[in-house]
Amino acid sequence: MLRTNLGLRIPEGMRDLLPEEIILQERLEEEILALFRQWSYQKVLTPTLEFTACVQPDMEQDDSLYKFFDREGRVLALRPELTTAIARLVSTRMRGRNFPLRLCYGADVFRNTSVRHREFRQVGVELVGSDQDLADAEVIALAVKAISGLGLKNYQFNLGHMGIFSGLMLEAGVDEGIQAKLEEALARKDMVGVESLVRQSGLPTRVQELLLRLPHFHGGEEILNEVLDWSERPAIREAVESLRQIYRYLSDFGVQDNVSLDLGILRGFSYYTGAVFEGYVPGMGFPVVEGGRYDALYADFGVPQPATGFAIHLGNLLEQFSLSPTESADVLVYGSDVEQMIRQCQVLRAKGKRVEMALETIADDVAQKMALQKHIPKILCV
Amino acid sequence: MLRTNLGLRIPEGMRDLLPEEIILQERLEEEILALFRQWSYQKVLTPTLEFTACVQPDMEQDDSLYKFFDREGRVLALRPELTTAIARLVSTRMRGRNFPLRLCYGADVFRNTSVRHREFRQVGVELVGSDQDLADAEVIALAVKAISGLGLKNYQFNLGHMGIFSGLMLEAGVDEGIQAKLEEALARKDMVGVESLVRQSGLPTRVQELLLRLPHFHGGEEILNEVLDWSERPAIREAVESLRQIYRYLSDFGVQDNVSLDLGILRGFSYYTGAVFEGYVPGMGFPVVEGGRYDALYADFGVPQPATGFAIHLGNLLEQFSLSPTESADVLVYGSDVEQMIRQCQVLRAKGKRVEMALETIADDVAQKMALQKHIPKILCV
Repeated sequence: MLRTNLGLRIPEGMRDLLPEEIILQERLEEEILALFRQWSYQKVLTPTLEFTACVQPDMEQDDSLYKFFDREGRVLALRPELTTAIARLVSTRMRGRNFPLRLCYGADVFRNTSVRHREFRQVGVELVGSDQDLADAEVIALAVKAISGLGLKNYQFNLGHMGIFSGLMLEAGVDEGIQAKLEEALARKDMVGVESLVRQSGLPTRVQELLLRLPHFHGGEEILNEVLDWSERPAIREAVESLRQIYRYLSDFGVQDNVSLDLGILRGFSYYTGAVFEGYVPGMGFPVVEGGRYDALYADFGVPQPATGFAIHLGNLLEQFSLSPTESADVLVYGSDVEQMIRQCQVLRAKGKRVEMALETIADDVAQKMALQKHIPKILCV
Repeated sequence: MLRTNLGLRIPEGMRDLLPEEIILQERLEEEILALFRQWSYQKVLTPTLEFTACVQPDMEQDDSLYKFFDREGRVLALRPELTTAIARLVSTRMRGRNFPLRLCYGADVFRNTSVRHREFRQVGVELVGSDQDLADAEVIALAVKAISGLGLKNYQFNLGHMGIFSGLMLEAGVDEGIQAKLEEALARKDMVGVESLVRQSGLPTRVQELLLRLPHFHGGEEILNEVLDWSERPAIREAVESLRQIYRYLSDFGVQDNVSLDLGILRGFSYYTGAVFEGYVPGMGFPVVEGGRYDALYADFGVPQPATGFAIHLGNLLEQFSLSPTESADVLVYGSDVEQMIRQCQVLRAKGKRVEMALETIADDVAQKMALQKHIPKILCV
């Protein structure tokens, strides 16, 4: 049936991958997953479709899920990320495994927003069952090495901690509504919004000043002492000392030079509870790596476990690389005796050659032209 | 937020792949795609979401699409197969390439039916731009070699031709409604339904007999002559001679022993027009390979091209293989000096070792027990 104009197009945010594009994406993914394996992470895969009750139990939350009803009227969603789905998997079929558990994945995720790519490839890891600072340091170091291993230059990672902001809110007795708005504005780095919220908050001047300073605490270990000058509250002290320890471990991993402390970062997902980090590459205005500690998520699935992890937005990184020419066959086999031609192809393939067979009887000059067009270096007449 | 019971489950027909399961699926997929590459097929990928106007323009048709509305009220669907989406891709972004074009893919497809797997992996090829019998023979031979290459035994392929049934219908002047019902019953191999439809059809006795015989025309080249005894109509003769030629080429490819002619097969997708085939493995009541010629589909996208191809339902084949044990690390590194431990892990990883690092200071016997549980053959105390 003849397609309408719509039938020739793809939905907004979707994309086709041509041979030269998919070769690139798969090469990058294989390199990263080989690194994850070397660090003892095992691959798992969850389904594309989940119940919304799993991936986003709070239906009130404004969201970007692709959602629809199944035949029983339950709401299904295309997975927006893997962390929650893997928590479900670990809490059910994998709960008897030995912890800490190191898992990794490579899969497409779906977000129905106005961004350029609404289906895009993510690769990432989850380290489940350890509350140690060393676990945080391991995943951050692994994220940095994954990005540097691709040959990207001038990438930059920022490292913060959810406990500093939430400790401040606790100290100042800020109500949940204002806290959520502030957190959102800070996460979006909307400084005008932050300032307006802080000024209207009625908080003590000292806390107001600290909140406005927060996005500007960016640098090395020295900024941690600065925070302690402002507050001695145990929750904040604990977060600061945890960050200090993680940051020192990053030096042992040899990646500290690529990581700055940044107390203003607050990752977008609601599940983060501890150290959080993000990675940037030049020319891209959004993070290509997002990760952090999420110690409360597993309890939501009835099996409490501390956990940390990250995701690399691989699909968005493709434009940082130039496309290789498409792989072509090694030899074009042609001729008028089909039986002999087929046999010859089989012999060459058995020797490991990549062989294209002419499907019609063609003259030598036609074969030469065809090979040239398809970048096949050799022709063989049978 | 605490999950409900529903939030701990996955939707019907979905599945999680544990480490040992995904290793198997990826190994099979890599083996098959390596073979496709050797035959000069290039990989492409289309999006998970398509407009229904692309993948199923006839909304009247009863279907098993996962469908939903986008924000503009257009109907989106999860791809149920790749052939149509690749036809869209070739007819748009790839229309300037050199034909014949050999493309392949490995991707999940989605069918909202009552079958066990509603999301499952498919690998397949499309050979676009050739109407030659040799093109059909190439893809059939490639399908057989893909299945045999996996080490499966006693697999069986059946080969038929849409032109024989449609030629008969034309000859007998059967109206479209009855033809569609008959085609459906034959495709389902519902012999009671076929008999009832044939008996009520009012067709000439000779045609009735031939229709009832059709599902039983199964075997070698001899059955082709039998068909010609029944009908000399050019369309039927053409289909028969095409099948004969393809079948002989299969002998040149060395795969004829695994293929039977079967004039009763009519593949389920509406786009098939010529030679059609299906592959079975013992113990599975449905085909694991489905393919055939579809010479009219590209015209629906405004760029007429003859084409043939097949898909292997890889996700359904997994149960034919035993699972390998999960890959584990080569060595567990532990100790009380974290800095030295991290350095040692880095040294070993640089040498290509797969290394798991203990995240807490543990005693030798605890390390031994942990290594045993995780199947790590070696421990190293730093």
